Amino acid sequence: MAKRVTAPGPRDEKGVLAARILDAARGEFAQNGSAGTTIRAVARAADVDPALVYHYFGSKEGLLDAATNPPQRWLESVAATWATPVPDLGAALIRLMLGAWADDEIGSVLRSVLQTAAHEQSTREKLRRVVEGQLMGVSGLGVDDRDRQVRSALVSSQIMGLAMMRYIWQIEPIASMTDDELVVAVAPNLQRYIDGDLS
Amino acid sequence: MAKRVTAPGPRDEKGVLAARILDAARGEFAQNGSAGTTIRAVARAADVDPALVYHYFGSKEGLLDAATNPPQRWLESVAATWATPVPDLGAALIRLMLGAWADDEIGSVLRSVLQTAAHEQSTREKLRRVVEGQLMGVSGLGVDDRDRQVRSALVSSQIMGLAMMRYIWQIEPIASMTDDELVVAVAPNLQRYIDGDLS
Repeated sequence: MAKRVTAPGPRDEKGVLAARILDAARGEFAQNGSAGTTIRAVARAADVDPALVYHYFGSKEGLLDAATNPPQRWLESVAATWATPVPDLGAALIRLMLGAWADDEIGSVLRSVLQTAAHEQSTREKLRRVVEGQLMGVSGLGVDDRDRQVRSALVSSQIMGLAMMRYIWQIEPIASMTDDELVVAVAPNLQRYIDGDLS
Repeated sequence: MAKRVTAPGPRDEKGVLAARILDAARGEFAQNGSAGTTIRAVARAADVDPALVYHYFGSKEGLLDAATNPPQRWLESVAATWATPVPDLGAALIRLMLGAWADDEIGSVLRSVLQTAAHEQSTREKLRRVVEGQLMGVSGLGVDDRDRQVRSALVSSQIMGLAMMRYIWQIEPIASMTDDELVVAVAPNLQRYIDGDLS
């Protein structure tokens, strides 16, 4: 197979090739899990030599770990969104989710993590750590630590369920509703978890 | 490997063996997808002869289909729950979900469907059909057909997200909250989707 010319852009060649490998790996892991994925198959999908995959990522475990790492800029936007004034936080969080999935790179990582976590223990553990420690952990809600955790976990449950229905399972009419329709429909429910009476 | 004696119980031997094969198949498909699952591996996990699996289910596709079919008695309890008086429906639906996952057989099917649907197109399509046609389809909510679909899809998004967090990903504190805590926290949000103002 002829090697593709690397795409032009601001990254250096290593960055371009690594990104292409990770993109291919996300598809393979999501489809086949770690047990069903080979470095060779990822290399073929990325149109690179398998030796390059080993050179960049060391092993299949290293590749899985890199492919399912949440992008730093997304974690930063999550943290920034939690700083939204409380009365506006419900709408801000649903818009954050919609924006993340609309972003090619972040959407591709989120899709791969959710699909891979269904059947891959290590990815499920990573998802758990990220949700508990970084998606919920940065919130300043509630009257005490337990209340904060319950509230942000409930927020996550609604956002995750919406993401599964809209992007992974593509269940109608959630899959085709506009962003604005979803914000109007869902933000008040998130807002109750944020500052409503839950007892 | 010595064949296990079939368990005593009200079912005949065919029922017992078929149930054992389906139980094993659910685990294999959830873990490895259809592509990574063989009849031989399912037969080994169920401790039966592979020929028996072919005899009962015809093919791997037939086995996948049977393993991911929602139990009839669960679909009936879903339909019955939707007939709950509207003011009590939110609480009834969250209790329905908690009860289903606490039931060994139904919980095992639900877990397998959600895990397999992450990476198996045919199971994703079945999940979509079941949710759109049987979990949402039996509801009598809303002012028109579109409104009914939006409301019951939003209900599903919350219930599905909660199920993923509690049973599949096991994210705290959702995973260890009591049923009663979850009902109190979540039922009012479902109730808003059922009969609240969504615009």
